[in-house]
Amino acid sequence: MRLVYLGDIVGRAGRDAVVERAGEIRRRLDADLLIVNGENAAGGFGITQKICEDLYAAGVDVISTGNHVWDQRELLDYIDSDPRLIRPINFPAGTPGRGATMVESARGHQVLVINAMGRIFMDPLDDPFAGVEEQLALCRLRESVDAIVVDIHAEASSEKMAMGHFCDGRASFVVGSHSHVPTADAQILPGGTAYQTDAGMCGDYDSVIGMEKTEPLNRFTRKIAQGRFAPAMGEATVCGVAVETDPATGLAVRVAPIRLGGRLAETFPDWAAQGRAAAE
Amino acid sequence: MRLVYLGDIVGRAGRDAVVERAGEIRRRLDADLLIVNGENAAGGFGITQKICEDLYAAGVDVISTGNHVWDQRELLDYIDSDPRLIRPINFPAGTPGRGATMVESARGHQVLVINAMGRIFMDPLDDPFAGVEEQLALCRLRESVDAIVVDIHAEASSEKMAMGHFCDGRASFVVGSHSHVPTADAQILPGGTAYQTDAGMCGDYDSVIGMEKTEPLNRFTRKIAQGRFAPAMGEATVCGVAVETDPATGLAVRVAPIRLGGRLAETFPDWAAQGRAAAE
Amino acid sequence: MRLVYLGDIVGRAGRDAVVERAGEIRRRLDADLLIVNGENAAGGFGITQKICEDLYAAGVDVISTGNHVWDQRELLDYIDSDPRLIRPINFPAGTPGRGATMVESARGHQVLVINAMGRIFMDPLDDPFAGVEEQLALCRLRESVDAIVVDIHAEASSEKMAMGHFCDGRASFVVGSHSHVPTADAQILPGGTAYQTDAGMCGDYDSVIGMEKTEPLNRFTRKIAQGRFAPAMGEATVCGVAVETDPATGLAVRVAPIRLGGRLAETFPDWAAQGRAAAE
Amino acid sequence: MRLVYLGDIVGRAGRDAVVERAGEIRRRLDADLLIVNGENAAGGFGITQKICEDLYAAGVDVISTGNHVWDQRELLDYIDSDPRLIRPINFPAGTPGRGATMVESARGHQVLVINAMGRIFMDPLDDPFAGVEEQLALCRLRESVDAIVVDIHAEASSEKMAMGHFCDGRASFVVGSHSHVPTADAQILPGGTAYQTDAGMCGDYDSVIGMEKTEPLNRFTRKIAQGRFAPAMGEATVCGVAVETDPATGLAVRVAPIRLGGRLAETFPDWAAQGRAAAE
Ligand SMILES: [Fe+2]
Ligand SMILES: [Fe+2]
Ligand SMILES: [Fe+2]
Ligand SMILES: [Fe+2]
Ligand SMILES: [Fe+2]
Ligand SMILES: [Fe+2]
Ligand SMILES: [Fe+2]
Ligand SMILES: [Fe+2]
Repeated sequence: MRLVYLGDIVGRAGRDAVVERAGEIRRRLDADLLIVNGENAAGGFGITQKICEDLYAAGVDVISTGNHVWDQRELLDYIDSDPRLIRPINFPAGTPGRGATMVESARGHQVLVINAMGRIFMDPLDDPFAGVEEQLALCRLRESVDAIVVDIHAEASSEKMAMGHFCDGRASFVVGSHSHVPTADAQILPGGTAYQTDAGMCGDYDSVIGMEKTEPLNRFTRKIAQGRFAPAMGEATVCGVAVETDPATGLAVRVAPIRLGGRLAETFPDWAAQGRAAAE
Repeated sequence: MRLVYLGDIVGRAGRDAVVERAGEIRRRLDADLLIVNGENAAGGFGITQKICEDLYAAGVDVISTGNHVWDQRELLDYIDSDPRLIRPINFPAGTPGRGATMVESARGHQVLVINAMGRIFMDPLDDPFAGVEEQLALCRLRESVDAIVVDIHAEASSEKMAMGHFCDGRASFVVGSHSHVPTADAQILPGGTAYQTDAGMCGDYDSVIGMEKTEPLNRFTRKIAQGRFAPAMGEATVCGVAVETDPATGLAVRVAPIRLGGRLAETFPDWAAQGRAAAE
Repeated sequence: MRLVYLGDIVGRAGRDAVVERAGEIRRRLDADLLIVNGENAAGGFGITQKICEDLYAAGVDVISTGNHVWDQRELLDYIDSDPRLIRPINFPAGTPGRGATMVESARGHQVLVINAMGRIFMDPLDDPFAGVEEQLALCRLRESVDAIVVDIHAEASSEKMAMGHFCDGRASFVVGSHSHVPTADAQILPGGTAYQTDAGMCGDYDSVIGMEKTEPLNRFTRKIAQGRFAPAMGEATVCGVAVETDPATGLAVRVAPIRLGGRLAETFPDWAAQGRAAAE
Repeated sequence: MRLVYLGDIVGRAGRDAVVERAGEIRRRLDADLLIVNGENAAGGFGITQKICEDLYAAGVDVISTGNHVWDQRELLDYIDSDPRLIRPINFPAGTPGRGATMVESARGHQVLVINAMGRIFMDPLDDPFAGVEEQLALCRLRESVDAIVVDIHAEASSEKMAMGHFCDGRASFVVGSHSHVPTADAQILPGGTAYQTDAGMCGDYDSVIGMEKTEPLNRFTRKIAQGRFAPAMGEATVCGVAVETDPATGLAVRVAPIRLGGRLAETFPDWAAQGRAAAE
């Protein structure tokens, strides 16, 4: 099975690039499922129903989020109606929406996608490890599901790595988001789980984490806001990770980064055009 | 001019790998200067005189550090005597050691190396932007120096990116450290400064930021220490960034990541074996 | 019913003062229950079985703790055996010890004491509001218990005040700890719950939060540790809060601070020697 | 000399109470100088020229601030024109306004008032200890000035206590602000400096740090904003500290808290109506 995850979409530049590239990415990889993190899609802050619909229309299967999930207040009314849009699982009981979703791929495989938020240097939430554990205990690879993907939205690289090892052998793929910078540490962990610390953003990399750089620079140096943060509007780089799983185990056999367009060095899995490693 | 920076050396695995690979890296790139971040070289916590000497003997020219700089208390007595070992410039006035150093390359070029520490999610220090500004104001590319390298040791990707843009056009190369994960965003910023958000660690990537993973996992999930943190001892990946500057401007013409050994996908600048982009 | 709570005991100075004064405080107030926070009793860091026994012998009924609870590792083996020693309730499931305890006063009243830890500017734990809610839902004033006391061990005054209002009308008394400074805001909240943002420490106030002041001052100004933190050894001020409840409701009718000895202005409830406000 | 400091004014309730009580406080104490912290005076967020003028008209001599100083953007244009309005001294060089001011009392004494901001759990700024040191080095008690007051606006009680000891013997009075809760630790430090960790707010104490409690409680428990923060409008308690200095030394001979009105137990210096301890 081939799973693709694209990191935090930042603003219009990021949205346009993902909408434009989603079909191509699916086709080149013969991908079974496309997940994107959409927490910054609406002008850098949150996401709307309209944007979700545009992303689904472009070929996205699941949208995960993070600390910016509620920035657009309309989402509170919408999120319960959309089974493919998830928010971090470790919000308090009673929070609108869901923290995990089971989706069926075009070929009929069941995939569980979990979204969790780290707590180091972030707003206090419930324990992300306990939240993920509960899902993994309910839902075992090969038994009740064909693949499991965990989006760990976190600041500290230590917490993301710890989540990778925590899920190792029990999830197909653990990927980080939130730093808005792709990491170059894609690997298959010893237990068979594909891992990358951060997928990076889909946004303009001539910026400060996707935002037009003047105001962030002003705030770092002068400590007084001059204006609002606005997404940078240069050409976005679409950043993500592709994973191929072994249908016999649900674990990963291949993992590779994706970077298309914009300022960063392009890369695409060199196995994209090859046949699958194991017959399905 | 060709400059190489290798990120945080973690423990013996990281030290051994750097000592073993330093000569090869210099030779393959025909490098003029090799800088390493050594803040975690001594068992994960700090660095000692002996380790500095071993690194210099292996071909390292400059050692930068970060928040762990004082973990080995002997360094307080040693640091003033070593002009090639630097600590973040934004410690209070009167702090032992220096925050920047001017070194001469084998070919006689002058290079200013500055070490600064971010403040977001980190211990309070003086303003890193003001500290770097003071150096850049004193020391201009092409006027008093052939190249300027800034190691911004910081947690938040936003602060590192902001430092990149802050120095853009005034430094040859701004590189982040501290996250212990290499980022895949090497680029030359619009003003000509080479930039990568984090060089990554030189350490074992089957770990939590270079430390044996059991105890970090225990602390994340149980919130009670069971033991001490110890560096992971598997084969290290040497992670860093190579930059080539234009001698006419001191700005960057090429930038590419380095990853050698261990668990991560290897990469080396494809221009390493080529002649320099501009005659020196 | 009369309940007394004394804040964080810091080191030997604090222990000696509490042991010496506990009987006097009980007697002057004709107190039914004496609770102390002991998280810094052992040299500033944690507490031991021996110290617990000394405190019980001096007249203490319940010992609560906070973020320093595990600093003395022997406590992990001891805590399960001591029903009067509590640790914050919002540690992960499976943590040794208990986060709440039901104790019987000398006169046969049942008192529930809950310990919770804040999360703002502190280590991530489970939700303290949810943890307290669970206890309050199980155990209602006048129905199953005569009084309920909540020790909210937290850094941010906002989180402590919020806990006060959260419990208002459902607990007899909510008191903060951890800042090591007594606040002067004792009041009965609109719903009948006695509240004080912080009880203050039992320790030497010629110090930095109870620790000998030289090393803290050194670290604030030089940012390099010179030595270890050690408790200040001058005469301690015993700091706490006394509450009288109405037996008919379990809610508070009187609240007043206690400060005895050392450098702070002394105070003791002016109603201590009076009869109780309502017959029991 | 008699100096009065009133803590953070929160919203209209706090403003009205200070305007109403300022004259009475001055008269009862025969005060020479009245300082207030105004950082939350404008609806909880910042302060305006109009509010400054109202406070001066009511008898206030100096207004200090804190992290909310720039919440009302008009202040950026106004602050340079008002020598009696100060902002934290450890903002970057070039920041509008001043961090310290020399004022003359009605009786012709010179008083230096310094405002500094802590960094623990707060936004990164320059070193508050170095900023205060620079002022104290320039301006010595009895030599160039009759009294020195330091407002240390900080979250951590440790940082405030450390500032007290740092200034001990060199300033007349160090007082904390920002926690919005008065502390009960007024004392004269060993070197002669009056100290209280926090003056408390001038605001409604049936609230969460002065704000109407519903929304803060909602955010603590549900982690999703429902509305905006608005100041609580119940009767405010005016909270502050009074200090009497020895004219021969500029150091403190008396210190006592002030709490008037609202929900907290009232207190006023019992020496207010007495003659001064030492002839001026
Ligand atoms: Fe994001
Ligand atoms: Fe995020
Ligand atoms: Fe490091
Ligand atoms: Fe570091
Ligand atoms: Fe404590
Ligand atoms: Fe504590
Ligand atoms: Fe305030
Ligand atoms: Fe404040």
